[in-house]
Amino acid sequence: MNSLIELNKMGLCQMLQAIESGSCDTEALINTCFDRIDVRELEVGAWHIKRTREEYLSEYRGNKSFYDQSLLKGLPFGVKDIIDTEEMMTEMGSPIHIGRQPVEDASCVALIRAAGGIVLGKTVTTEFAYFKPGKTKNPADLERTPGGSSSGSAAAIADSMVPMALGSQTAASVIRPAAYCGAIGYVGSRGEFSLRGGQPLAQSLDSLGLLARRVEDIQLLRAVLLRQTASIYNHQSTAPKCVLVCHGESVGETSAAMKKAMDNAIEILKSQGVKVIELDAGGRIKEMVNHHINIMSWEVCRNLVIESFHKEKLSEPLAALMEQGLSMDRKDYVTSLDATQVCRDWLWSYALEADVILAPSAPDIAPLGHDATGAPHMSRPWQAMGLPVINVPGMKDQNDVPLGLQLIGKVRDDDMLLEYANWMMPLIN
Amino acid sequence: MNSLIELNKMGLCQMLQAIESGSCDTEALINTCFDRIDVRELEVGAWHIKRTREEYLSEYRGNKSFYDQSLLKGLPFGVKDIIDTEEMMTEMGSPIHIGRQPVEDASCVALIRAAGGIVLGKTVTTEFAYFKPGKTKNPADLERTPGGSSSGSAAAIADSMVPMALGSQTAASVIRPAAYCGAIGYVGSRGEFSLRGGQPLAQSLDSLGLLARRVEDIQLLRAVLLRQTASIYNHQSTAPKCVLVCHGESVGETSAAMKKAMDNAIEILKSQGVKVIELDAGGRIKEMVNHHINIMSWEVCRNLVIESFHKEKLSEPLAALMEQGLSMDRKDYVTSLDATQVCRDWLWSYALEADVILAPSAPDIAPLGHDATGAPHMSRPWQAMGLPVINVPGMKDQNDVPLGLQLIGKVRDDDMLLEYANWMMPLIN
Repeated sequence: MNSLIELNKMGLCQMLQAIESGSCDTEALINTCFDRIDVRELEVGAWHIKRTREEYLSEYRGNKSFYDQSLLKGLPFGVKDIIDTEEMMTEMGSPIHIGRQPVEDASCVALIRAAGGIVLGKTVTTEFAYFKPGKTKNPADLERTPGGSSSGSAAAIADSMVPMALGSQTAASVIRPAAYCGAIGYVGSRGEFSLRGGQPLAQSLDSLGLLARRVEDIQLLRAVLLRQTASIYNHQSTAPKCVLVCHGESVGETSAAMKKAMDNAIEILKSQGVKVIELDAGGRIKEMVNHHINIMSWEVCRNLVIESFHKEKLSEPLAALMEQGLSMDRKDYVTSLDATQVCRDWLWSYALEADVILAPSAPDIAPLGHDATGAPHMSRPWQAMGLPVINVPGMKDQNDVPLGLQLIGKVRDDDMLLEYANWMMPLIN
Repeated sequence: MNSLIELNKMGLCQMLQAIESGSCDTEALINTCFDRIDVRELEVGAWHIKRTREEYLSEYRGNKSFYDQSLLKGLPFGVKDIIDTEEMMTEMGSPIHIGRQPVEDASCVALIRAAGGIVLGKTVTTEFAYFKPGKTKNPADLERTPGGSSSGSAAAIADSMVPMALGSQTAASVIRPAAYCGAIGYVGSRGEFSLRGGQPLAQSLDSLGLLARRVEDIQLLRAVLLRQTASIYNHQSTAPKCVLVCHGESVGETSAAMKKAMDNAIEILKSQGVKVIELDAGGRIKEMVNHHINIMSWEVCRNLVIESFHKEKLSEPLAALMEQGLSMDRKDYVTSLDATQVCRDWLWSYALEADVILAPSAPDIAPLGHDATGAPHMSRPWQAMGLPVINVPGMKDQNDVPLGLQLIGKVRDDDMLLEYANWMMPLIN
């Protein structure tokens, strides 16, 4: 059993390397994922729908020669249940869509499947990727929320049930659950990946997310999604020359534990010879929180149209968000859109020298309880600006509960962002 | 029969006003659309799938009290067949998706239906809204192409088969068919409307389109899609103070007939006291054509993923576009994305004074033949910059074949663009 736990904790590239080197058998790796799920799923609740072990192995064995020759070898991935899958329902955490069977795979799912991944199941999402939680608990502390909305994907990764999972972020829906559960969560620059087949929430904010346990796995999956040459070896890792620090106070309150984690990270960066400069935003980043809320309010009720006709089946917070959006003045929406561009241009001209920004992923560790998914405001500014972001796990509070730090990159500079994260990850672990 | 032809030629608002005033019966208007289709569809071929008159009237009569109290009174609309409809298949002009039945309506369809519109049918699209033509012929001259990709929607509007239709534009897919057929075609600012349930082609370029016969109808439908207060009366019309003219030569060659149409329009503007300034872009707009092609090439093969696995069922031009995108260097893609922003900022700072841009919608009238849909380059620059655009019909060559002029607005300034178009439309008709 011990050796099995070791296997399932490996990263995706590590698993694939073990298969290539012959030190590990694909079915053993698949089985170790199912073993972990068997032991933990009843408590963690990461999965909304999933294949049984038998169904999975039957798919793998039935197409063994394809999978064995493929990049991803038939290893399992989880798909947030707002992303369409041809072979499984997509119910979006809502009673409105019970039994909804999409016609085809989302592009991201199709690409990972074509690269040899197998969908193990659909991971729990909050209602339409907004606030109302699903059944998932935080695997690091079952009394706590896993965060949302990519709750199941973050929990499944952090609990080593699968080595890769898909999520999405409109406000904080990848970074926050990744931070709370202790997973790597990467959100692409706005527009970077096809969102075909993913349920849109707000077209000016939605981004695809990837969750994994090692940065190199994110680099591999990013190449798969961009249909670029993908390798399981030798992923780039680069030290930033200069990091711009955005303390939580620029956005809102952060806990003492988070402040300490940020201080520790800054010390580590300095000890590595990285120049650290502090962001003095003069309220500009905090303003982005409200602009983000304006944009989201306006757009959600114009995307979730069918759903808005079933008000009785919507949660109170989602119905309230829709009401807000419907009564908004369009001028305020356009003003907020403009403001995000102005702030983005200001930010990177302010810190011409900086390669990347370091900021808290959330105000604190995951809050206790399962009625809410924690505060999203630490992500809203970056998401409003459409920047690529990655949660780098590793820091913990005195009780060993994860504290997440995010690295934020320049628009479309996702590859460098991942290289910096790949460099930083071992230093804080 | 003459009075029927008059009825079906009315604009949407005119029809609705006639119903409200009691001067016209809803069923008479519905019947006049079907009468026109009965007479012309065999030749024009605007429809891929459609309801019969009996099916339509049964839907209308079955929910008569809802429709009679609704804004759109049960009048028919056409939906480009890359936009999902719950009650009809969406086959996207491709053999790959024969029989494809979507799970739910696209948001735009759901909103028009909720406002009391009834889907008369799915209009012909080129293959995946790219180049390979469907069966549609130009109703103004059956020997000519209707343009693409929203071929059926433009033809159905221009031929007075329905008073409203949905389209989409990634390159020139609304403006060009609208110009060729003689319809109004409006393309929203990038991000303006929800694209949920519309087949994405290139996420950085795709926009929803609306087609109708009068600008006020577009204003009405825009309000419906934005869930704003919509009225069938008193739509705003505003004279621009200053118009920036972009002659076709800034993008490519234009015909003598188009040059004359532009000159005529400029004379009309001047005679109305509008200040006209000429764009000297120094090659900047022409460069946008290639940047647009780069962006589209990169993104299409990453959206049409499932389809790319059925190469044998793709047209040669689409397969070639995908090949190009797959072999591209990502740097060229990002460079092109950046260039569009730079050009957009330059454009409006160059002409601070200008309210709107006037340019040819296409190089010429619709070309003869049905093997291709005409050249899209007159639209590529504006689409690359994400600007709102409207084709204003009315000009014709010496043989009475339509010549389209486009008005191009500032980002998210769609309401003013429509007011300028509403002012200009009667002047050139």
